[in-house]
Amino acid sequence: MKNAFYAQSGGVTAVINASACGVIETARKHKDRIGKVYAGRNGIIGALTEELIDTSKESAAAIAALRHTPSGAFGSCRYKLKGIEEHKAQYERLIEVFKAHDIGYFFYNGGGDSADTCLKVSQLSEKMGYPIVAVHVPKTVDNDLPITDNCPGFGSVAKYIAVSTLEATFDVASMAKTSTKVFVLEVMGRHAGWIAAAGGMAASKEMDLPIVILFPEIAFDKAKFLAKVDAMVKKYGYCTAVVSEGVKDADGKFLSDQGLRDAFGHAQLGGVAPVIANIVKEGLGLKYHWGVADYLQRAARHIASKTDVAHAYATGKAAVELAIKGRNSVMPAIKRVSDKPYKWKIEVAELKNVANKEKFMPRDFITADGFGITEKCRRYLAPLILGEDYPPYKNGLPRYVRLKNVAVKKKLAEFNI
Amino acid sequence: MKNAFYAQSGGVTAVINASACGVIETARKHKDRIGKVYAGRNGIIGALTEELIDTSKESAAAIAALRHTPSGAFGSCRYKLKGIEEHKAQYERLIEVFKAHDIGYFFYNGGGDSADTCLKVSQLSEKMGYPIVAVHVPKTVDNDLPITDNCPGFGSVAKYIAVSTLEATFDVASMAKTSTKVFVLEVMGRHAGWIAAAGGMAASKEMDLPIVILFPEIAFDKAKFLAKVDAMVKKYGYCTAVVSEGVKDADGKFLSDQGLRDAFGHAQLGGVAPVIANIVKEGLGLKYHWGVADYLQRAARHIASKTDVAHAYATGKAAVELAIKGRNSVMPAIKRVSDKPYKWKIEVAELKNVANKEKFMPRDFITADGFGITEKCRRYLAPLILGEDYPPYKNGLPRYVRLKNVAVKKKLAEFNI
Repeated sequence: MKNAFYAQSGGVTAVINASACGVIETARKHKDRIGKVYAGRNGIIGALTEELIDTSKESAAAIAALRHTPSGAFGSCRYKLKGIEEHKAQYERLIEVFKAHDIGYFFYNGGGDSADTCLKVSQLSEKMGYPIVAVHVPKTVDNDLPITDNCPGFGSVAKYIAVSTLEATFDVASMAKTSTKVFVLEVMGRHAGWIAAAGGMAASKEMDLPIVILFPEIAFDKAKFLAKVDAMVKKYGYCTAVVSEGVKDADGKFLSDQGLRDAFGHAQLGGVAPVIANIVKEGLGLKYHWGVADYLQRAARHIASKTDVAHAYATGKAAVELAIKGRNSVMPAIKRVSDKPYKWKIEVAELKNVANKEKFMPRDFITADGFGITEKCRRYLAPLILGEDYPPYKNGLPRYVRLKNVAVKKKLAEFNI
Repeated sequence: MKNAFYAQSGGVTAVINASACGVIETARKHKDRIGKVYAGRNGIIGALTEELIDTSKESAAAIAALRHTPSGAFGSCRYKLKGIEEHKAQYERLIEVFKAHDIGYFFYNGGGDSADTCLKVSQLSEKMGYPIVAVHVPKTVDNDLPITDNCPGFGSVAKYIAVSTLEATFDVASMAKTSTKVFVLEVMGRHAGWIAAAGGMAASKEMDLPIVILFPEIAFDKAKFLAKVDAMVKKYGYCTAVVSEGVKDADGKFLSDQGLRDAFGHAQLGGVAPVIANIVKEGLGLKYHWGVADYLQRAARHIASKTDVAHAYATGKAAVELAIKGRNSVMPAIKRVSDKPYKWKIEVAELKNVANKEKFMPRDFITADGFGITEKCRRYLAPLILGEDYPPYKNGLPRYVRLKNVAVKKKLAEFNI
């Protein structure tokens, strides 16, 4: 019987710990097959440096509380393994650590880059003779993994952005007569516009609201954008622009990259929201406000999507069940069975088909003018933001858990990564 | 029997409509004393332009739904009446509109400037012989009205900022090993640091978190700030800075006012968050992320404080009850009876003691180093963020109401404000 290694990678989300909960609770149910679950402190780095956390020291209640706790309970990392041929020493070290702690299962919880790391670890059996079963657990707010219908983490950001866009649009509508007429909200999405698209869900047939979306997939056209905002403000008196951080101009340059300098000539890093707000002010003379959701959007467990939490837990659980069956180099993927009522199941994706591929918004999810979402996109997004899954509260604040994170005693010499 | 006029003023909040709900539901219970409630479209402007909304056309269910709907259902305005002596024509117009629609009660829902407008209207009886009872309903996220222990609208922003700071701090803690070490969150509060203080509530004895607060009441000292951040990052590995938009340097200049120029030399309006983030980067070389909550914070009815909703409703209700008793020129104020368990009641404040006064953070609510909140501040804030009061949801989104807002037929000639 082998132990398991589990780690979190890349930008964390409101529900990545729900996947951790699914992994650990399921492993605990299969004590005949899996020994301890060791978590990597700060992702794969924990495996390389032998900084392992003994999750068996955590109570059942603490592990259960991971389901409603945002962020990465064991620490995450932005660190991509090179190929086995390029950096063999790292893989030898991984094997050394796995051997020392009798690790036979490897679960890596992350996005596209992490899937690539997991794929490389899954090749240790074949290429270096160390028997390991590596399963990737999908996670990314960017929703850009292929094969899976959606990525755990995205539904909750989508819900947060849809709710926030609705609320802020009600706000600007109230102020428009004598004050702000345009509200600009910057959201995440460097390459794919999935999160920005979610802003469009604030409006519906029953709730007609003027929302303009700027996608990274559509080159920014200043004149067209100003004409759109102008038309909306003329019709409604106000509007909201939901802007993806990754919006680029026709030359492919990020709009946020405006070469800002302060009064002393120092370079300043701004967001794209103030850039768009200035364009509105200069082009139309309208009063504006702008916001940048940044970490708030992906950490907002308080308004997580119930569907998303269920997906996150289920993929963690399925990863363990697949590993027990000996399925190496795979990822549990979410398969949509029907839109309405929403039904889904878990299927199995080969990791080689997942790693290093990005899924962008299909063009037919974006309206012809490039500023909105189509009915097809709404059908896709609607179930992902469905349901609320509130954390418990104490003294007015969510009771998020912090684990003890007891270190496993090191057995090996230091290793510099 | 006279009709009533009700209007919303200044920046809207997550719970100003709960006050509207309190006013209208209570007036409906006193049909023997108050006729119809006419709402001003866009605040006092609606009274001047005779743009009145007949709230009697709204169903009981629609009015009840105001309790869980953010923003200003009738539209708000930023418009301050001048003194009666300076601008007599405006007051004559108000009297003309009130006479035409048989209005004997005036309810104005706003902050300090609005209290001043309400005070002036309350003087119409005395100075111009028109019998009116004017009652102010307190509202402001800035929490800066005197006499009342707190202002409806503030508790919900405070809860939003406390929850968001907690969530974002968990996020940056997860990322700190290889990526972001400092998260900067800009919050509202041009003059008073009440909202920034709420960020400090994310940490507690049981939840030790490194949070630095920058208050507008404390002159920004770059060297001290960098030393504080450096110490926190050395101890915890990361930290969160909650920054009031109104932070000023020792010369009283807003930190957000950096004279930013784009590559073409155009002036750009930035927030204070990117300024602080740049200071951290240049001074300590640490990787950062920054967010600006802007309208999201004050519109966030989805995470409103139950205490705040109760206060907002109760002040609206009390305003009508005071008016029926003929109490002119007053404001229902919240009186704290005990901290723990939190008990409160409504008392009556004279409007002349409320208008045009600002309540700042007491110095003993801020720690000696100027970067945190004291136990005294915690005792004050704790009950204000207590309890959740979730709106109903449909299809993954809150079911916020939009009223029919049926116009009352005009009887008078146009009036240019």
